[in-house]
Amino acid sequence: MTKTQLSDCYNRISPYIHNTPVLTSRLVNTYTNATVFFKCENFQKTGAYKMRGATNAIMQLSSEQKSKGVVTHSSGNFAQALSFAAKSLDVKATIVMPANSPKVKKDAVVEYGGHIVECAPTIEAREATANQIVNDTGATFIHPSNDPDVILGQGTACIELLKAQPDLDVIFCPVGGGGLIAGSALAAHYYGHNCQVVGGEPMEADDAYRSLLSGTIETNQTAHTIADGLRTQLGHHNFPIIQKHVKQITRVSEVEIIEAMRFIWERMKLIIEPSSAVAFAAVIKDEKMVRNKKIGVIISGGNVDVNNLPF
Amino acid sequence: MTKTQLSDCYNRISPYIHNTPVLTSRLVNTYTNATVFFKCENFQKTGAYKMRGATNAIMQLSSEQKSKGVVTHSSGNFAQALSFAAKSLDVKATIVMPANSPKVKKDAVVEYGGHIVECAPTIEAREATANQIVNDTGATFIHPSNDPDVILGQGTACIELLKAQPDLDVIFCPVGGGGLIAGSALAAHYYGHNCQVVGGEPMEADDAYRSLLSGTIETNQTAHTIADGLRTQLGHHNFPIIQKHVKQITRVSEVEIIEAMRFIWERMKLIIEPSSAVAFAAVIKDEKMVRNKKIGVIISGGNVDVNNLPF
Repeated sequence: MTKTQLSDCYNRISPYIHNTPVLTSRLVNTYTNATVFFKCENFQKTGAYKMRGATNAIMQLSSEQKSKGVVTHSSGNFAQALSFAAKSLDVKATIVMPANSPKVKKDAVVEYGGHIVECAPTIEAREATANQIVNDTGATFIHPSNDPDVILGQGTACIELLKAQPDLDVIFCPVGGGGLIAGSALAAHYYGHNCQVVGGEPMEADDAYRSLLSGTIETNQTAHTIADGLRTQLGHHNFPIIQKHVKQITRVSEVEIIEAMRFIWERMKLIIEPSSAVAFAAVIKDEKMVRNKKIGVIISGGNVDVNNLPF
Repeated sequence: MTKTQLSDCYNRISPYIHNTPVLTSRLVNTYTNATVFFKCENFQKTGAYKMRGATNAIMQLSSEQKSKGVVTHSSGNFAQALSFAAKSLDVKATIVMPANSPKVKKDAVVEYGGHIVECAPTIEAREATANQIVNDTGATFIHPSNDPDVILGQGTACIELLKAQPDLDVIFCPVGGGGLIAGSALAAHYYGHNCQVVGGEPMEADDAYRSLLSGTIETNQTAHTIADGLRTQLGHHNFPIIQKHVKQITRVSEVEIIEAMRFIWERMKLIIEPSSAVAFAAVIKDEKMVRNKKIGVIISGGNVDVNNLPF
């Protein structure tokens, strides 16, 4: 994907998204021996960066496609993002969700204007149900992460971060399905000055780490991580970008994720979800790499059940 | 107090404090039918605006006074703020705290460099212990709210807010001891354009509301409020300023405080303490006054025990 495609995407979606604040903390800087800039996508519409890719993917559809709506399967932030982006663009969004999804997640999708179709709680049932809707209605399926237009959209958070802080040395972001890190790696490549991108990934869902080692897309062997947004795995659109432009994947334990999350909550007063804490946990773990450098961290989202905290 | 005193104070303390961000939320604007600007003092050093007044009060001391240290009695944000401000200015701070204060609060004071002297958990014991330290050491007692230099310092948050948004119609802030609202009222008077100041106060600790009605400083009849920072009462330095420059005090219930707090946490992804939620709860309650207006809200702090939430 070219710089022009990325900059066109940024110009296209800018009216529909927030240019979220970049925050700093002297305490964090002291603690990490680095200068750290947090790109706060927890303040993004619907509480996560997913709005960016969802908005771009819908805007790239033809009028006829738009008239038939969009569909995805997700029980997480992309479900809410696609619902709200579609509503903003006057397009119908259908979200395939497992019937056992938490009520709070179903309510959020409905609140943002999405239409829910329930399915059995398996990946096969999700895909079959989504395919059925595509066949029946002519709606366009939009994948949460393995879609070029989604990848471009997710990269725009990193563009904004680099416009605010052009000389970052390293940008850390979480790795789940790979859309955010692929887009960020493209943005760092085109907009940074020798800016490297490092992925933070839970040890309990380390498909990206192992995929980079083996050179082929690996599946997660476990997904017992609190970082519920990162249980997904890489796809054929984003993996080659990650191979080419990501410096390394740093794996972190569940304890490290929870400690990083608590640090950001208590010291920076920001509500971030566990997936976002994974990126900061990787910064702490990579202490030698970050020392005396200018570091960016993509705080991917802030959607967390405040009645069910890990601390 | 004059505009020159206030602007001198602002110039004096600026190198030692954060100019905290002013954040907005479309959801809040839709919900309130107003345009609301949140001055995020939860991002201030030590997690609350109290750093401002503490810093100014210490900076106004003579070299000889500074050499003998400062003392206050507080188990809340002022204890931490005076400790850290004193450390930054190379002055010794002694904090008189009830022996039964939570360990987390004692730890914070020690971490910020304060020296704790414990006393019995009564206001009489606090004052007697502080007086004893003043007599024994020559340290200067600094009151958390009823001190002209503290009031001026607290007003600087409102100066920054009005520099960022000069044409605010109304600024809401919480009322506890009265230092923040008195300082804010002075700042709105000198820096605003017909900008009014409204105080949010818990019904369970409504001394300011009743004091404005009676024209004399009233004491709290109860203090059973979750807004632990607002259980204190007005003093003779700040009450006349409040009488002259504050438009009204809006009282809110405990349920309204908790709902407002939850709204800010879940929708704005900001960790704010219950006292800050009181100001936003007052905005919601004063829906007719705020409609179609530009509103400022002082988010006073974010120091809250994340293991002991009211929701």
